[in-house]
Amino acid sequence: MSARTGLLETPHGAIETPVFMPVGTKATVKAMTPEEVERLGARIILANTFHLLLRPGDEIIRGLGGLHRFMNWPRPILTDSGGFQVFSLAKLRKLTEEGVEFRSPLDGSAVFLSPENAMRIQENLGADIIMCFDECTPWPADFGQAMESAELTARWAARCKAAHQRADQSLFGIVQGGVHPQPREWSARATTDIGFDGYAIGGLSVGEPKYDMIAMLSVMDRELPRTQPRYLMGVGTPVDFVIGVENGIDMFDCVLPTRTARTARLYTNEGLLNMRNAEHAANPAPPSSSCECYVCRNYSRAYLRHLYMANEILAPRLGTWHNLHFFLSLMENIRSAIRDNTLSGLKQRVMMVYGQKEFAGDQRD
Amino acid sequence: MSARTGLLETPHGAIETPVFMPVGTKATVKAMTPEEVERLGARIILANTFHLLLRPGDEIIRGLGGLHRFMNWPRPILTDSGGFQVFSLAKLRKLTEEGVEFRSPLDGSAVFLSPENAMRIQENLGADIIMCFDECTPWPADFGQAMESAELTARWAARCKAAHQRADQSLFGIVQGGVHPQPREWSARATTDIGFDGYAIGGLSVGEPKYDMIAMLSVMDRELPRTQPRYLMGVGTPVDFVIGVENGIDMFDCVLPTRTARTARLYTNEGLLNMRNAEHAANPAPPSSSCECYVCRNYSRAYLRHLYMANEILAPRLGTWHNLHFFLSLMENIRSAIRDNTLSGLKQRVMMVYGQKEFAGDQRD
Repeated sequence: MSARTGLLETPHGAIETPVFMPVGTKATVKAMTPEEVERLGARIILANTFHLLLRPGDEIIRGLGGLHRFMNWPRPILTDSGGFQVFSLAKLRKLTEEGVEFRSPLDGSAVFLSPENAMRIQENLGADIIMCFDECTPWPADFGQAMESAELTARWAARCKAAHQRADQSLFGIVQGGVHPQPREWSARATTDIGFDGYAIGGLSVGEPKYDMIAMLSVMDRELPRTQPRYLMGVGTPVDFVIGVENGIDMFDCVLPTRTARTARLYTNEGLLNMRNAEHAANPAPPSSSCECYVCRNYSRAYLRHLYMANEILAPRLGTWHNLHFFLSLMENIRSAIRDNTLSGLKQRVMMVYGQKEFAGDQRD
Repeated sequence: MSARTGLLETPHGAIETPVFMPVGTKATVKAMTPEEVERLGARIILANTFHLLLRPGDEIIRGLGGLHRFMNWPRPILTDSGGFQVFSLAKLRKLTEEGVEFRSPLDGSAVFLSPENAMRIQENLGADIIMCFDECTPWPADFGQAMESAELTARWAARCKAAHQRADQSLFGIVQGGVHPQPREWSARATTDIGFDGYAIGGLSVGEPKYDMIAMLSVMDRELPRTQPRYLMGVGTPVDFVIGVENGIDMFDCVLPTRTARTARLYTNEGLLNMRNAEHAANPAPPSSSCECYVCRNYSRAYLRHLYMANEILAPRLGTWHNLHFFLSLMENIRSAIRDNTLSGLKQRVMMVYGQKEFAGDQRD
């Protein structure tokens, strides 16, 4: 049992782990003010280098005093490197040993990302934790492809470490290698040999079956050093949280609570609700009678359904509030359960409500 | 000089007048929580009978305890009667002495509104102040049309008063008659002869030149009793506020601050800003350095522009916050100025900034 609690120190404060990081892609956690995100218990958020590079541009943000000041968030921030988005969002990309050239989806202009300028851009943004520029191994990938991707990511990781200058920013390496144990092991060793402040597991939750992800998590748990933070990128669901924590994961980020809120899906201890369903039309009950969040204390299912049906801005606001409360509270409960040695009971309750749906692969419907 | 301050008592609290009522068309002031609307200083809001009748339906709202509880707003509410929207939004309407039949813009079903069921619907919604069902005189309308519209509105007003049952709800009459003095005078006398708790001026700010509106306001000031509240419906701009107050108006409502915020227009003491303009791209200054609202204390023009360009939900949130602060503060300043006998100075400052633009008729661009 590798589950653990910890304290991650950053220039903008310490973070209790395991931690869930809400995603603020474009320097805003969608629909929320920073004060609300803080009031909900978030202590670190993620912002996306790729999106901020394209708009408003990292130089603009640097000129305005960096990302914390730009978006009025005084607590820790982690930026990804842009690698994931280059490979999943940008069309017409050209990959060489040097880096990746692609066309901006906003205006078609040519943009080049490499280990060196991914470091420079993230230094301009000024997050507390920055990430190596990696090649996200696609799924499916055969053994050879996975190995090549792990090797390129390792060569780029060495260049990132060499280019990294700001001592106030922690730099994390990223392990790739698809769902094949050997490339994953090789990648973990190569990355730890270079040596980073923390280690991220990339390339999971990209379409592979959940049992493949679970298998890779146990490989990673064996290979990654216990002395440094471990970050499972872009994951996950309530079930992923308990499985990840069991495998020694300390940090998670995912758009799931914020994105689902915008399509009227609310997470509760009793299951996932679709607030557009007609069954809620006259229901005076809150989304969850066991939830003590602002939304559940003040609004009925009927009112929330009305807001969603009318496409009112208050709908995604209240939905996001509730879902972030659910995800952040779940992670708080996980931390307590680790300390109290009751994680297996919590895992069982999460599995009972969300296990079947998630293992069927439809948690993002 | 008819400007006056007052206190309007309602079952949900007293309201200092002159007052600006933010518009919560579909039981939400767009982009805002009720707590935020209250924190900004709003003490009464308006909700629209037409929209709530069509969705979610007045019976649903009644079943959930009425509009206050449905939308979590514990302070006073005023509902319009649906008349304005029937005549401006609904196609395929059929007007008879009995009422108006129209097709729902949502699903095409047949809906009938009359004085009697406008009363019943507003009783189901449960606002503190409800409005007579009127025919909004269109602009332009010739003398004969304006007189006919005023006469029909008066006959309907008598039916509204006869049908009105809930003693805890105040009922206001509406004066129509276009921009012709005689129909306006006739309408004011006919409406006050029936006798209501307050009197509204309808059919202005519907496209007519501003000097026509000003002329009608002075006619109304002469004709309406000073003993009861006067409400200028659907108005207005900063300039309209000072002109209205000078003519004895006590209550205003308008979508202007909330609607313009969604298209990136911010009102400031220095003029109207378009936050999408490129000039703001790297500007660290707040929208207004003379403004002490939450937005101006915490965010740069550069960040706001970024949010608007990226179509982030936080953009209309912050814009609405700022604009409502501007409108509600302006009305607070107007109340102080009336008490201190300094309204002419305040009017001059508003005219210097907004007069030219508004008299050119492009304040809603």
